[in-house]
Amino acid sequence: MTRTVYLNGDYLPEDEAKVSIFDRGFVMADAIYEVTSVLGGKLIDFGGHMARLKRSMDALDMQNPLSDDEFLTAHRELVTRNGIEDGLIYLQVTRGNPGDRDFAYPPADTAPTVVMFTQSKPGLADNPAAKQGIRVISTEDLRWGRRDIKTVQLLYPSMAKMEAKAKGADDAWLVEDGRVTEGTSNNAYIVKGGTIITRELSHDILHGITRAAVLRFAKEAQMKVEERAFTIDEAKDADEAFVTSASAFVMPVVEIDGVSVGQGTPGPAATRLREIYLDESRKAAV
Amino acid sequence: MTRTVYLNGDYLPEDEAKVSIFDRGFVMADAIYEVTSVLGGKLIDFGGHMARLKRSMDALDMQNPLSDDEFLTAHRELVTRNGIEDGLIYLQVTRGNPGDRDFAYPPADTAPTVVMFTQSKPGLADNPAAKQGIRVISTEDLRWGRRDIKTVQLLYPSMAKMEAKAKGADDAWLVEDGRVTEGTSNNAYIVKGGTIITRELSHDILHGITRAAVLRFAKEAQMKVEERAFTIDEAKDADEAFVTSASAFVMPVVEIDGVSVGQGTPGPAATRLREIYLDESRKAAV
Repeated sequence: MTRTVYLNGDYLPEDEAKVSIFDRGFVMADAIYEVTSVLGGKLIDFGGHMARLKRSMDALDMQNPLSDDEFLTAHRELVTRNGIEDGLIYLQVTRGNPGDRDFAYPPADTAPTVVMFTQSKPGLADNPAAKQGIRVISTEDLRWGRRDIKTVQLLYPSMAKMEAKAKGADDAWLVEDGRVTEGTSNNAYIVKGGTIITRELSHDILHGITRAAVLRFAKEAQMKVEERAFTIDEAKDADEAFVTSASAFVMPVVEIDGVSVGQGTPGPAATRLREIYLDESRKAAV
Repeated sequence: MTRTVYLNGDYLPEDEAKVSIFDRGFVMADAIYEVTSVLGGKLIDFGGHMARLKRSMDALDMQNPLSDDEFLTAHRELVTRNGIEDGLIYLQVTRGNPGDRDFAYPPADTAPTVVMFTQSKPGLADNPAAKQGIRVISTEDLRWGRRDIKTVQLLYPSMAKMEAKAKGADDAWLVEDGRVTEGTSNNAYIVKGGTIITRELSHDILHGITRAAVLRFAKEAQMKVEERAFTIDEAKDADEAFVTSASAFVMPVVEIDGVSVGQGTPGPAATRLREIYLDESRKAAV
C-alpha cells in the first residue's frame, strides 16, 4: 500500500511528496521535528510533543505554521488514511524555501515547510527487544551544543548508530567529558541501590517527552530519582540500565561495551516503568 | 530569468527541482556540499573542491556518484546555460532516498542525490566590501566536532550570522575554549609583527581550499606563516585580520566586537594576498 503523507496542507501519495532543493531543511538543516507514537490508533503524549515543537521553534525564531488543533487533525487524518493501529507519526517543520541559498534567515513571512508521515509498526508496544533488552556501545558525543533543540542535524547520531551496528550492538550511548549525555535517539538511565539516575536537563540533552512522563510515574510509584550525570564505568557497575524514547517507550539495556549490566537481563525497575508508562499513556492517548 | 539547475543527471528549471521528503539530506542532514567560484566564466580551484568532496564522502562512507570529469562537465554546463560570468556553483550530494526514515544508513546501492545550482554574482571579485573590510562579532562555537567534513549541518553558522546581523556586524568568529576556530563560513586569520597567524588544521575547522592556496601564496611571497590558534583578545590587538573562503576570497576584517583592528582599515597583508590570490586563481581557472 502506498502511504499517504502530508505536505503543506495536501495529502499526497508518498512518492509525490517533494520539496524544493532550495528548502532550508535540505541545504541548511534548518528544520525541527517530532515523533509521536500511535497505540491502538491513538496518539501518545501528543500535548508534550506539541509543547516541545514550540520550544524548538522559539529557540530558532521559527514561525509556528499551524495550531495544535490543526496538527492534531492532520495527525489523526494520517492515522485514518493509512490505517495505523500501532506506529509512529513523524512531523518536520523547516524554515521554508526562500528561493535561493543564504546563511541569513529568509524574511519572516517565508512560508514554513510542514511534512508529516506515518510509519506502521504493528505490535509496537510488544517489541520482543523489551523482553531481552538491548546492547549498547559507548562513543564520544560530537553533536552540536544545543541538543535540547530537536533539529534534523542527525548525521552524528546516525554515524554512532552505524558504529554500534558494526560492533554487533543495537545502539550507542554518547559520552562527553567522561560522562554519558544520552543515547543516539533516546535518554539514558541507570538504576543503583534502588535509585533511578539520569542526566539533568540542560542544553546537553534532549528534553525527552517520554523522560518527563517516566520520571513522573517513577516518583508516583515511590521510586527514588536522582537527576545527575554518570560515567560509563558507573553504568557498567549499575544494577540496571535502560533508555526511554517516544518510539521505544522504556527499553532495558543489558550490556554496555560488552559488559553485562546487573544480571544481563531486563531489571525490575525498567520492566515496571515500561508497564506503568504503557498503561498510563494508553489511558491518556488522544 | 529562471535558473537552470542540475538534479540527478537532469537539467531543470529551478522551480521544478525537487527532492523526496524521505531524502536523507532533508530528514537527517546526511549530505555534504562544495561551493566553487566562477570568475570570467571559469572555475576557481575546481580540483581542490573535488578533492575535498571526496574526503567528506570518505569520512561518511558515502558513495561518490560521479567522476571528476562528470562533475566538471556539469559545472561548465550550468555556467553556460545560466550565462554566469562571475558567481558561484553550489554542489550537494546526499546519501539519497531510502524510501523511509531510519537512523541506520540505507543499503550501499541506494542512489545518492546530486544537486548543483548557480548563483550569479556580477563583479564578485570587485566586491566593495574588500575595500572597506568587514566587521565581526565573536560568539561561542557550538557546532559538532567534525567541522573538517563539509556537511549541510549549517544551522548554527546560520544562527551566528543572524546574531552578527542583529548586532550590526557582517559576520561572526566562533570561539571554543577561549580560542577562535573560524568564521561562520570562512577561515580566520590575524597578522601580528609581519606574521600571518591562522589556526592549524584539525577536526575543529574546515580545511579551506582557499586557505590552502592563500597560505601557499603567502609563503611563496616570503611572508611568515604560523599555524596556531589565537584568542579574540589577541585578534583585537593584531595589526590586521582577515578571512578567506571560496566566495569571499581574501576579505579584510577591520573590527572585532566593536574594537578596530590595527588602523580600522584593510591592512597591507590582506590586500596583497587578495591580489595575489585573485591573479593566480584566474590564471589557473578551468
